[in-house]
Amino acid sequence: MKKKVAPLTDLPQEFSFIHRHFAGLAGPAALGLKDDAAVFTPPAGKELVIAADAMVENVHFLPDDPPETIGRKLLRCNLSDLAAMGATPEGWLLTLARPPGLDDNWFEAFCGGLKADQEYFGLSLLGGDTTSTRGPLVLSLTILGSVMQGQAIRRSGARAGDGLWVTGTIGDGALGLRALQGTLSDPSGYLANRYRLPQPRIGLSLYGLASAAMDVSDGLLQDAGHLARENGLTLTITASMVPRSKAALACGPEWLETCLTGGDDYEILFAVPPAHEEMLEHAGILETPHGAVPVSRIGRFEEGNAGVTVIDGQGERLSFAKGGWSHL
Amino acid sequence: MKKKVAPLTDLPQEFSFIHRHFAGLAGPAALGLKDDAAVFTPPAGKELVIAADAMVENVHFLPDDPPETIGRKLLRCNLSDLAAMGATPEGWLLTLARPPGLDDNWFEAFCGGLKADQEYFGLSLLGGDTTSTRGPLVLSLTILGSVMQGQAIRRSGARAGDGLWVTGTIGDGALGLRALQGTLSDPSGYLANRYRLPQPRIGLSLYGLASAAMDVSDGLLQDAGHLARENGLTLTITASMVPRSKAALACGPEWLETCLTGGDDYEILFAVPPAHEEMLEHAGILETPHGAVPVSRIGRFEEGNAGVTVIDGQGERLSFAKGGWSHL
Repeated sequence: MKKKVAPLTDLPQEFSFIHRHFAGLAGPAALGLKDDAAVFTPPAGKELVIAADAMVENVHFLPDDPPETIGRKLLRCNLSDLAAMGATPEGWLLTLARPPGLDDNWFEAFCGGLKADQEYFGLSLLGGDTTSTRGPLVLSLTILGSVMQGQAIRRSGARAGDGLWVTGTIGDGALGLRALQGTLSDPSGYLANRYRLPQPRIGLSLYGLASAAMDVSDGLLQDAGHLARENGLTLTITASMVPRSKAALACGPEWLETCLTGGDDYEILFAVPPAHEEMLEHAGILETPHGAVPVSRIGRFEEGNAGVTVIDGQGERLSFAKGGWSHL
Repeated sequence: MKKKVAPLTDLPQEFSFIHRHFAGLAGPAALGLKDDAAVFTPPAGKELVIAADAMVENVHFLPDDPPETIGRKLLRCNLSDLAAMGATPEGWLLTLARPPGLDDNWFEAFCGGLKADQEYFGLSLLGGDTTSTRGPLVLSLTILGSVMQGQAIRRSGARAGDGLWVTGTIGDGALGLRALQGTLSDPSGYLANRYRLPQPRIGLSLYGLASAAMDVSDGLLQDAGHLARENGLTLTITASMVPRSKAALACGPEWLETCLTGGDDYEILFAVPPAHEEMLEHAGILETPHGAVPVSRIGRFEEGNAGVTVIDGQGERLSFAKGGWSHL
């Protein structure tokens, strides 16, 4: 614990740090980051959707990841939670425990990345806190979004017979981590980029289409297991139907398990009643304000309570040693 | 980074940890802590007040502090931010980066303290995240409160001539820290308890009374400096008028500077226009749902932009080497 010797009229180090780096991110509700709290007027007739996620150096990102992607990744992970609920981003708060080694240049790049992303996704900083630590960098981000009353998509709501669908491609993030760790070749850098900068599926119009949804962050099979359990149903997934990028397929068939069980996808997994499936199958995409997102059916919900079964194209059951990420 | 080997139908360790310790704290908006985000319906006609604070082991609390007070302290620090704005608590989110040494018993006590406090202050857990770290325990808490439209009390709004008032007593927390560090005697344990369990002044009816307010967390003089600067005014504080507890006074006059510049007070510092001061002077308290809170005038706002001046009872200027806490 340190005290700073400073004349009473000076701005202490903590406040000048916040002003220097974060004031440019603050929206009107943040009151210039100078008050004890932000005052946020919720959009009329809407419910708020709120989530918080933390990231720790060496657990969720690598110490030599570019600082401009570290903040963006955390923001995008939280945006992915909003996307899964069908919510529109409104604002975010950030706390950071800062180790001695990170200098002003690092934070300038870190905040620059966040600024680009908050403009792109249409939200602004509401508040936060900075503190020192002798341990690794710890970032914690709380995100606020809004959704029309009663239109939030939940994890529960799927019925037997509903199809299981997923956005984008699965496995790129997990393979990108292996590439950055040097155990996998990634000539184009596509996989590493997918690990560092996931694409949250903000603006998917799931209301009226999906009966349940969640984001895939801890590995497809583990997260599908949550969906199965929350709905008291069995899920059968056909491995060959799980969409993989060209770069992921180029890694070879021995990486299938990593794709299905690795984390860091930040795609949306959702249940679709049969009545809506033909249209979706035909379109193959869902439109969002940020462009069209490919969608693929990968399985189906069935009666029972047997978790997730993975089969190959011939209907043979596949088994895997690893279930997915746990951050503990 | 570790992967857990687990059958696909098992709950991973992270989820059972959350269920075991945190499910009992979750309110209806938290959706059982099972969805990607909470869905919170803002009270009609009210604005939301939102703040986030982080606490790091060895910076904001001591490793041998009782676990039941550590969580409560963080919650209370955030509640103090709501109190300063005149807001009513609604809910909170918690992220924690958990070092290997903390076991289930530790978290049971930690959550037990939080449960008692959330019931007392009338709010419930909305969501959060847990992760592992090899560094110190890092806790980050986001709090949501509500206030009638336009009735949030800001740091700005004071005018020259307004009195500077403060709730409770100043310096107990800073002295309590010294007592726990063994550099000060605290025979009754009163000061240590004030350090570990600050009393947030929730329910102070400041609207219509105070022209500006903030909570005192980084030391009275530093925080008074913020109020002076935010209002473009000079503040003169009379040291002898700053209320100190019996236990603080018993430490002796040499601890005055620690009381005025040490942190961890979590009292409310507020500006009162002269027209309201006589009534307040006469009452000496403000009522809250949690009991009467003593209030004391300690200074006055004046024209100018000279920060904070501290004088003794004879009007002589006092000077201090240290301005207050910075957490960086």
